[in-house]
Amino acid sequence: MDGLKSIDELNNAFSKRRDELYGQKNDGKKVFGLFCTFVPTELILAADAIPVGLCGGKEVTIPSAEEDLPRNICPLIKSSYGFKKDKACPYIEASDIIIGETTCDGKKKMFEHMSEMVKLHVMQLPHFRDERSAKLWLEEVRDLKELIEEETGNKITEEKLKEAIDKVNKLRELFYKVYELRRNKISPIKGTDALKLFQMSYLLDINTITGIIENLINELEERVENNEGYSGKRILIAGCPMVAGNTKIPEIVENIGGVVVGEESCTGTRQFENYVEGYSIEDLSSRYFKIPCACTYSNEDRIKRLKELVDEQKADGVIYYTLQNCHTFNIEGALVEKKLKEVGIPIVRIETDYSESDKEQIKTRLEAFLEMI
Amino acid sequence: MDGLKSIDELNNAFSKRRDELYGQKNDGKKVFGLFCTFVPTELILAADAIPVGLCGGKEVTIPSAEEDLPRNICPLIKSSYGFKKDKACPYIEASDIIIGETTCDGKKKMFEHMSEMVKLHVMQLPHFRDERSAKLWLEEVRDLKELIEEETGNKITEEKLKEAIDKVNKLRELFYKVYELRRNKISPIKGTDALKLFQMSYLLDINTITGIIENLINELEERVENNEGYSGKRILIAGCPMVAGNTKIPEIVENIGGVVVGEESCTGTRQFENYVEGYSIEDLSSRYFKIPCACTYSNEDRIKRLKELVDEQKADGVIYYTLQNCHTFNIEGALVEKKLKEVGIPIVRIETDYSESDKEQIKTRLEAFLEMI
Ligand code: SF4
Ligand code: SF4
Ligand code: SF4
Ligand code: SF4
Repeated sequence: MDGLKSIDELNNAFSKRRDELYGQKNDGKKVFGLFCTFVPTELILAADAIPVGLCGGKEVTIPSAEEDLPRNICPLIKSSYGFKKDKACPYIEASDIIIGETTCDGKKKMFEHMSEMVKLHVMQLPHFRDERSAKLWLEEVRDLKELIEEETGNKITEEKLKEAIDKVNKLRELFYKVYELRRNKISPIKGTDALKLFQMSYLLDINTITGIIENLINELEERVENNEGYSGKRILIAGCPMVAGNTKIPEIVENIGGVVVGEESCTGTRQFENYVEGYSIEDLSSRYFKIPCACTYSNEDRIKRLKELVDEQKADGVIYYTLQNCHTFNIEGALVEKKLKEVGIPIVRIETDYSESDKEQIKTRLEAFLEMI
Repeated sequence: MDGLKSIDELNNAFSKRRDELYGQKNDGKKVFGLFCTFVPTELILAADAIPVGLCGGKEVTIPSAEEDLPRNICPLIKSSYGFKKDKACPYIEASDIIIGETTCDGKKKMFEHMSEMVKLHVMQLPHFRDERSAKLWLEEVRDLKELIEEETGNKITEEKLKEAIDKVNKLRELFYKVYELRRNKISPIKGTDALKLFQMSYLLDINTITGIIENLINELEERVENNEGYSGKRILIAGCPMVAGNTKIPEIVENIGGVVVGEESCTGTRQFENYVEGYSIEDLSSRYFKIPCACTYSNEDRIKRLKELVDEQKADGVIYYTLQNCHTFNIEGALVEKKLKEVGIPIVRIETDYSESDKEQIKTRLEAFLEMI
């Protein structure tokens, strides 16, 4: 089977993105660097500014980060910090300001260090999901709006916000559609390609990525009609983000004959699920507040949604993916494992980092898992 | 020099505490188990109930905890969880309810597991120290008050609250006094004894511990008059709690001729500093809100206070103590090190767990540190 044209298009767009972004900057647009899917990008877009995801997925900058940060924290945090420290990422360097958040301990405290190198605004994401926390989060979203207006000099009008909300909702709709297409017995897209899509959507211009996914959907629909695609043991990957530079797990899965049919991840469902259901700042705030991340206490909603996803995507089993030293996802993982097993869903837990050294070992474990399910 | 009589008294009181507590329970008093110094014990005392600190300081229950929790989280969390799982701690078993908090990721998520074994109420401690977070915390404190009233059936009247606030403030005053006495060139008390005092004050009846410290202060004053006590390189230990069962660091320090003159710790200054400055629930809430723990973003106050403490206690150097896998204290540690070195305060960072295996290595490092300062 030939590769997907729209994935070539994606790669192509990415290779041009750096220059395009600096061009947009030259035209006076402000760039907002982000480290988490909790930050409402609609506000940034509504101010004619550009959001870019900065999470580091590569090992190369970790040694430099480890000069300042403990070694035993998650590779994503170290990689990200190292990229800034080494000025090794054009997207971080392009950022006029970074918007952090208080999600996990590691990131929260890393920002204290990073703030010595960059302009940084941290949003307080509360631990709970109750009324009073929703109120606090709404105030944080309002503060962000003000900050963006100041930073860009552009007023976020009702109209502008509506436009941005529609745009991002549209993208969400397309992602939902891709997920639907992956439900087919023969999935029309590889997990590695799907993941690339999520990763790139944090970096590319929203119009570009929207166009690409539209084309992709056409291609995928064609494949479905022709019964073309990938079959094998169907896997849902759940857990920590797999950000640009990191395709370790889906690569292994698909090398041993499995098919990834979904990602319960910030490079996956957490990125697009739930629409903003109106055009007010409250509607915006509450869509983001619902994201089921392990940083929340407590998190039954995530487990519930996971079970549904297994069902919807017709997954044969779940790979629970934890980045080393990610306490929240790791500790929650034990609960997830228990609850999934209770309803007969096979699950294997993999804890890993960005190195290549454990690839063989993971492969062996996943081969056994695929055989078992 | 003979040992301190009041330390014998302390050991003696502790050996009787278990039976005393169960006696109090038999008399109808409710027991509230706590895992953090952020929980306002005044409210518990005001309802004629008993607060007990449950943090685990022993290795023995860790293997059992590691069946449910990841291995790479802090030993305090694993030890605590294991004590409950194994029903190995009379104080946890005596607890009618446990009050948890959202301080660090590890503890927050551990509570999700623990809540399957015990009645548990979790307080949301916000990440920030701004106005809106203070408001949220106040509401959490109010909720706790209600919960305690329900749980005990006792109304927390203004008078009862005043009484409790006075009582705990009195204890704080005595701790301040002990710290003052430790400022003497010849410190009248060993660090291991001082630590035991803090550890036991989480477990003993407040009247008992208050009486013991009063006696202790008399003894210490006598020693100071007679120029008796301990001299050597003066050390401030800063960082993670050293809870009952864990005296590793001060023991090593004092075995190699150093003297611990202060603990910037939840078994130390974080436990007693700052009075409740009035008798309202707002006064109570705001005293606790000020505790400078590494779980806060951002935490300049802690670093400022640390420098003052070095000065006040006439410390020659700081041992920054981190429990393995404690991200918050560990990441903040790098900043603390930098800021302290900038003002010429010697600091060494030790990351360790509850095992004995690294004792020799720590000893060697601390010998070098003591020689150097
Ligand atoms: S896993 Fe949680 S904290 Fe990390 S990027 Fe996703 S939403 Fe944010
Ligand atoms: S993977 Fe876990 S530890 Fe790493 S940044 Fe995300 S939530 Fe934090
Ligand atoms: S170190 Fe922080 S989280 Fe731990 S007991 Fe102390 S105040 Fe609580
Ligand atoms: S020592 Fe650190 S990781 Fe352990 S319970 Fe306290 S704050 Fe959490």
